[in-house]
Amino acid sequence: MTDWTTHAEAYKARIAAQIPAEWRLSPETLANLPLNVTRLPEDSGLLSDREKEIKTLDATSLAAAIAARTYSAVEVAKTYAKAAAISSQATHSVMDFFPDEAAARAQWLDDELARTGKPVGPLHGVPISVKDMIGLAGRARTCGSLTGALDPALQPSEDSVIVDALRRAGAVFYVKTTNPQAIMHLETNSFLGETLNPWNTRLTPGGSSGGESSLIAGGGSVLGIGTDIGGSIRNPCSNCGLFGFKPTAARIPKQGNVGGMPGQETIIGAVGPMAVSARDCELFVSSILAAEPWKRDPTMVGMPWRPEAARFSNGGERPRIGVMWDDGVVVPQPPMRRALSAAVDKLKAAGYDVVDFTPYRTAESWEILRQLYFTDGGAYVRGQAAKTGEPILPLTEWIMAGAKDNTATEVMALNRARDAFRLDWWRYFAEQKVDLILTPAYPGPAPVLGTSKYWAYTALFNILDMPGAVFPTGLYVDPQNPADKADVEGARPWLSEEDKLNAERYDAETFVGAPLALQIVGARWEDEMVVKALYGISDVVRA
Amino acid sequence: MTDWTTHAEAYKARIAAQIPAEWRLSPETLANLPLNVTRLPEDSGLLSDREKEIKTLDATSLAAAIAARTYSAVEVAKTYAKAAAISSQATHSVMDFFPDEAAARAQWLDDELARTGKPVGPLHGVPISVKDMIGLAGRARTCGSLTGALDPALQPSEDSVIVDALRRAGAVFYVKTTNPQAIMHLETNSFLGETLNPWNTRLTPGGSSGGESSLIAGGGSVLGIGTDIGGSIRNPCSNCGLFGFKPTAARIPKQGNVGGMPGQETIIGAVGPMAVSARDCELFVSSILAAEPWKRDPTMVGMPWRPEAARFSNGGERPRIGVMWDDGVVVPQPPMRRALSAAVDKLKAAGYDVVDFTPYRTAESWEILRQLYFTDGGAYVRGQAAKTGEPILPLTEWIMAGAKDNTATEVMALNRARDAFRLDWWRYFAEQKVDLILTPAYPGPAPVLGTSKYWAYTALFNILDMPGAVFPTGLYVDPQNPADKADVEGARPWLSEEDKLNAERYDAETFVGAPLALQIVGARWEDEMVVKALYGISDVVRA
Repeated sequence: MTDWTTHAEAYKARIAAQIPAEWRLSPETLANLPLNVTRLPEDSGLLSDREKEIKTLDATSLAAAIAARTYSAVEVAKTYAKAAAISSQATHSVMDFFPDEAAARAQWLDDELARTGKPVGPLHGVPISVKDMIGLAGRARTCGSLTGALDPALQPSEDSVIVDALRRAGAVFYVKTTNPQAIMHLETNSFLGETLNPWNTRLTPGGSSGGESSLIAGGGSVLGIGTDIGGSIRNPCSNCGLFGFKPTAARIPKQGNVGGMPGQETIIGAVGPMAVSARDCELFVSSILAAEPWKRDPTMVGMPWRPEAARFSNGGERPRIGVMWDDGVVVPQPPMRRALSAAVDKLKAAGYDVVDFTPYRTAESWEILRQLYFTDGGAYVRGQAAKTGEPILPLTEWIMAGAKDNTATEVMALNRARDAFRLDWWRYFAEQKVDLILTPAYPGPAPVLGTSKYWAYTALFNILDMPGAVFPTGLYVDPQNPADKADVEGARPWLSEEDKLNAERYDAETFVGAPLALQIVGARWEDEMVVKALYGISDVVRA
Repeated sequence: MTDWTTHAEAYKARIAAQIPAEWRLSPETLANLPLNVTRLPEDSGLLSDREKEIKTLDATSLAAAIAARTYSAVEVAKTYAKAAAISSQATHSVMDFFPDEAAARAQWLDDELARTGKPVGPLHGVPISVKDMIGLAGRARTCGSLTGALDPALQPSEDSVIVDALRRAGAVFYVKTTNPQAIMHLETNSFLGETLNPWNTRLTPGGSSGGESSLIAGGGSVLGIGTDIGGSIRNPCSNCGLFGFKPTAARIPKQGNVGGMPGQETIIGAVGPMAVSARDCELFVSSILAAEPWKRDPTMVGMPWRPEAARFSNGGERPRIGVMWDDGVVVPQPPMRRALSAAVDKLKAAGYDVVDFTPYRTAESWEILRQLYFTDGGAYVRGQAAKTGEPILPLTEWIMAGAKDNTATEVMALNRARDAFRLDWWRYFAEQKVDLILTPAYPGPAPVLGTSKYWAYTALFNILDMPGAVFPTGLYVDPQNPADKADVEGARPWLSEEDKLNAERYDAETFVGAPLALQIVGARWEDEMVVKALYGISDVVRA
């Protein structure tokens, strides 16, 4: 029997075999894992004190410590390889693992530092995890499909432009992480099965960059590459309590990655960092753009990182913030409302100018987006699955539902509708006289596996191509907190059928311990302003 | 009878009626026009000496003179309105004319200058001519089709983003100029008939911005707005001996203009200046970008004009130039070869580093482009014409030939082919280690009306989205010059059937007096470098 399950099992066995025996968890440990496995590497007994110390640093500190020779690149690479091996056994976040390659690269970096006395770049020795779809020379690269996994011709012989830029900056690559089928779920389920949220393994880490969020939150990575065409950086960062940044789409390279709909340009995905600090987000983008990657990437603009361009409309150090309490269609679940309220209170107390932001045309944005995502009605995605016989997963069917196979004439009409929507929405935004919108990235904490079916809190800002960032509030779902009690029929009027469904999907006990994060969004091309705001706002909210 | 010709004649009568009686040329004058009508305004007896003086200035000098109150905006506006009226009677370059509106605007600018003591912007009082398709509030706007001309609903109620930006900078609008059917000829023929080249009225002014080139070369405008998706700025500037600049497509606003294929994004057109000096090209783009137009235009990037970013690879003041003597498919006609040779000699003598640049994949670029221009197989264009019954013109049929009506799946494949071509060509370009390519913008001087059928010298750089500029060499077709003698069978081996056809279409007597211009092209996003190079190179070549 060589049906798809055989190949999928073989691929899973390959991943398992990539983990050295001494880093494997015992069957007893695996059978008795707690719901929260974020501290599994530290608790495994496999990390030395020095390795645990390394794991307390963000990427910026890590780069500084390696440059200062406090730690060697080799020991940092080994620490994260080990932690990734441990974490992924509990969460299934890894789809390719190559610690030996990382060790050799780290050794070269240590030698270079010794030889020249200076780091090769701002990321010298920093381990970076890489989402499946991102091209890394000689490693598997898939759209969450066995097709990509099985065909060696689809394995890139050279680095994608972003990986090349990060490599030049000194990064060390050691692991590739899972993405879902067609890269189009706000979860991470594929022929490899489901990736789990380390904060609460009943829940999804989000998607499509859910391998990344799971691995970083699980302690197996300090910095990762995500992509976002409907929320795929911001959603998993929200679900896993991380910092994430989705730039304006054309600012960060995409050449050399695979996409779920290659050649489709109706909605353009963005690439960006998934991180444990705000400053690591900026380190990531500034390091990449220093390599002038636009010279080798038709998808991006030739715009350096310009921190000097970051300016707030009031001329001061604090942006004017518009709070979008809900999107007009689905009210966030209770703990997310608690987190947003607490953030607003703290920001006001810190002197921020905070006003309400009334939602605008959310439902329409989604109707346009669903058509734009799959202009061929899903034919390409179905064709990829048909090559191996693997089934179309329920969340893939769900997102493709309602999309039709268009003609070129119809695609042109869709593009015109998109541009008209953008212009109108931008005008509305400009009229509100705020620098940023503050809102959730999802109408609740991380959902239970298989139930992530509301994209608008993030996808709206993909159709608008407005840069956004996510940050953890430091709050978590707490069944003891009365504010986290579920909404029930009659507790408040439902805004829509989806609102009711979203409310019904939540209860505090099931979601216990899930982190609560928030999103900020600014005008297109104002990436530097969004990142500048991210520092101040996240500091105040997390204080 | 209300067939399309009735409507077309009515529209033509409307244009004629817009010209005040005192600016009309006599039937005798019109019946006895010389082949070269570039001095018609000066020779008409309708311009005062002061108005003739105004007409010697480029836009930069004009703005300075108005700011210094040497001339009033009102008299400058009147000068150019009068000159446009005169020139267009010989060349048919105008499709909407509104001198009274211009006079009122100029009066307001004069009043503002008197009131505040300073100009409202860098273009204070500069008259700017506007290509038909560009949206100007309350004026006709067409794709060279009666549909647009007849339907008041298609007349914009507000300025396009570029017109708004130029208006804020102080520009005065007084005329709209012709563009061809579907805006897709390298000539300018539509329901309004053919626009003529003022240097030699047997020849085409080029297209699609041929109303602009005709009017500027004919002395009726000092600065105009063109657009370019296959050569439509560079070709008419080459044909009429003007300066023109096609920026990287996303750098200059397009919102509010109509396009020949609205909603199609496979190949993106650029908008840019058509001018009488290099510095006017820079004045145009820097004035527009100072208004931060990207805030209201989804088609463009948020990148200010950055003269400080202009750098040559050798670190010096002169770029390294690669000369593409021919494109590998069609050898330029003899006078164009003479102009290119003379330019290379002068540049070498001036100390420029000049090397040969071998053409690369030109024929393939054209095969991809033809498909990308009309992904619907021409259905939209045919539908527009069908609304009024106007015929599809021969050059429209020619450019649409071979295009098919694609599905979304097929469009995606075309986009992938385009991106693969771009990447490969960019790699090739980078390997040549030159800052710029120097090459003709067309394989000859302005063609005889109806015969412009070779786009590759310009269109190649549209598929590549590389910025380019055109400048006049100061040379003209000269039947007395032996170097301008036509190639005949056996004079040289033909590179292709198109090469033979191109050679056969030329003879020195027919083309007498046609200006000879050249094109420079740089890497994508290096717009500032191209403009910086344009100054030095055009100065040397024209000296």
